[in-house]
Amino acid sequence: MATERDLITAIARRAAAFAPAASPSGLRQGIGDDCAIWQPTPATDSLVTTDTLVEGVHFDRRWHPPRLLGRKAVAVNMSDIAAMGGTPRYALLSLGLGEAENPAWLEMMLDGLAEAVAAYGAVLIGGDTVKSPERLLLTVTIIGESPASRACLRSGGQAGDSIWVGGPLGLAAGGLELCRRDLAADPQWQEAVQAHLDPPAQVELGRRLAAAGVVHAMMDLSDGLATDLAHICAASGVGAEVEAELLPVPDLLHRAAAVCQADPLNWALCGGEDYRLLFTADPARDGAIAELGRDLADTTLTRIGRLTAPPPGGPGVLLRTADGQSREIGYGGYDHFRTAP
Amino acid sequence: MATERDLITAIARRAAAFAPAASPSGLRQGIGDDCAIWQPTPATDSLVTTDTLVEGVHFDRRWHPPRLLGRKAVAVNMSDIAAMGGTPRYALLSLGLGEAENPAWLEMMLDGLAEAVAAYGAVLIGGDTVKSPERLLLTVTIIGESPASRACLRSGGQAGDSIWVGGPLGLAAGGLELCRRDLAADPQWQEAVQAHLDPPAQVELGRRLAAAGVVHAMMDLSDGLATDLAHICAASGVGAEVEAELLPVPDLLHRAAAVCQADPLNWALCGGEDYRLLFTADPARDGAIAELGRDLADTTLTRIGRLTAPPPGGPGVLLRTADGQSREIGYGGYDHFRTAP
Repeated sequence: MATERDLITAIARRAAAFAPAASPSGLRQGIGDDCAIWQPTPATDSLVTTDTLVEGVHFDRRWHPPRLLGRKAVAVNMSDIAAMGGTPRYALLSLGLGEAENPAWLEMMLDGLAEAVAAYGAVLIGGDTVKSPERLLLTVTIIGESPASRACLRSGGQAGDSIWVGGPLGLAAGGLELCRRDLAADPQWQEAVQAHLDPPAQVELGRRLAAAGVVHAMMDLSDGLATDLAHICAASGVGAEVEAELLPVPDLLHRAAAVCQADPLNWALCGGEDYRLLFTADPARDGAIAELGRDLADTTLTRIGRLTAPPPGGPGVLLRTADGQSREIGYGGYDHFRTAP
Repeated sequence: MATERDLITAIARRAAAFAPAASPSGLRQGIGDDCAIWQPTPATDSLVTTDTLVEGVHFDRRWHPPRLLGRKAVAVNMSDIAAMGGTPRYALLSLGLGEAENPAWLEMMLDGLAEAVAAYGAVLIGGDTVKSPERLLLTVTIIGESPASRACLRSGGQAGDSIWVGGPLGLAAGGLELCRRDLAADPQWQEAVQAHLDPPAQVELGRRLAAAGVVHAMMDLSDGLATDLAHICAASGVGAEVEAELLPVPDLLHRAAAVCQADPLNWALCGGEDYRLLFTADPARDGAIAELGRDLADTTLTRIGRLTAPPPGGPGVLLRTADGQSREIGYGGYDHFRTAP
């Protein structure tokens, strides 16, 4: 990549190559002008989300293959659209690169990124390219849409709601630890390693849940169940009780935790980046929701507890164990900016 | 800022404090959920643009006051909305911070940013906060709108068009050089220093030009006239002739160039970050355009040349000097990624 124009050309070529055969009818101007332009669909709300991945903070190139990194930069944003029950439409990429970037590595990363944008049904329409001397920067912005006033928020939870998660918990945290310990190549850990390197965004699940009208509150699991459930509780003015024995912690994770001398329950509660959906619904709809989950390949919906009346003080997320004990776990996840106590 | 939540709260407080008295009717969900949500206005196109500023690459905290840096991160994006003739509506901020950020500095930067978003008529609705160990990162995304199919593109230029610029050229490049030489405090250079630290985005000019229906091609001057005009020529399939004696180079810049042992013409042609509008129009509308410029305070519209038939090969941007000489200047601006020949 000799010049910024070469880089933009490389990105624009992929945007075109991976665009749907029939260009989206609303797109008026993609990459190549001051702004991208599109015509919103009538009777829809527009959604927007953005996430930045910083090398050494959010990913490590020593074990993250470039194609999967490109896919992940897209998925973590698609997951926020999924959490609203929305449909992704357009993507922007702001790319920060050092001066001596390996062109082959960069091509593979852009391939993965463009491939993922298309796989989720969206089109890459713009962005920015800048110099970033020490660390690769990937900021992806996704614009989506939702039928007017039907997007699912964090704030609709009601005391008595069932709490659901859209898949296993803690796999991404376990996978990251296995990568750090240089154990990722062992096939027995593949599911966990893949959950860290190439996480899924549950866009189809979110859309179906929103269309079924069963969700009271929803978000995606990015900072860990303990923190993310506390966000729902704070936004909805409720508390929560999670049953430890209901948590979907795969056997694989128990074995990996033994190897890593880690606690699998801690991975499930506090490990970030699972990108599964967390939602609450009327317990009268438990059967309908379980059935909806069975219709989707690769998705297991698990009821893990219930919302309660708001406790006095604190986020009020309690973990109840089989021996009848309970402890507060709210806001127990990862925080980049937390200072030592 | 002890935690990420504290930081998000500080940003959300400013988004609320600087929001218009009457909240925009289309906004359904701002900061605090997985996505921001809004209802687009009927019969409009949506516009989106994003720009990243990297510390040490795009700005230097040794001389850039925090409030003005926050304003500039917004203005460089608003300028892209202006270049389409659009109206800004919503802003997102992705903020990358080191671990030992000065809280007072950060508060002032966020104040400037929120103040500028509001001054351009938009609302801060979301974003992301990440750790960036070496350098402050500011990625701003602006979403705007335009009456359907009325946005101004780079590609509409026609041979014979007059070429216009929306103000003086080269001030920002001169101002940057004065800052580098530690001369910024001298009041005689104030106009140039301010052009670098706190550039204007010509949103009102862009909107009026688009509404008047007089623009064939338009963009904002971010990489320097020589490069940006070459972009219009490439997109429109035309060439251009610029008259050196018509270029609006302020006297101040000639004096500053003498002090800095620089060439003021080079600042005007190749200096980036003026963020003035560059546009082309039918020469029959020259009078109407000049009159439109006189209606706007702080805006001087200057006709600097004309578009020509496309030359064989090359971007075809010629600079003609008073002595009858001409030379090719296309793509003569700054490029972060250019490698040495």
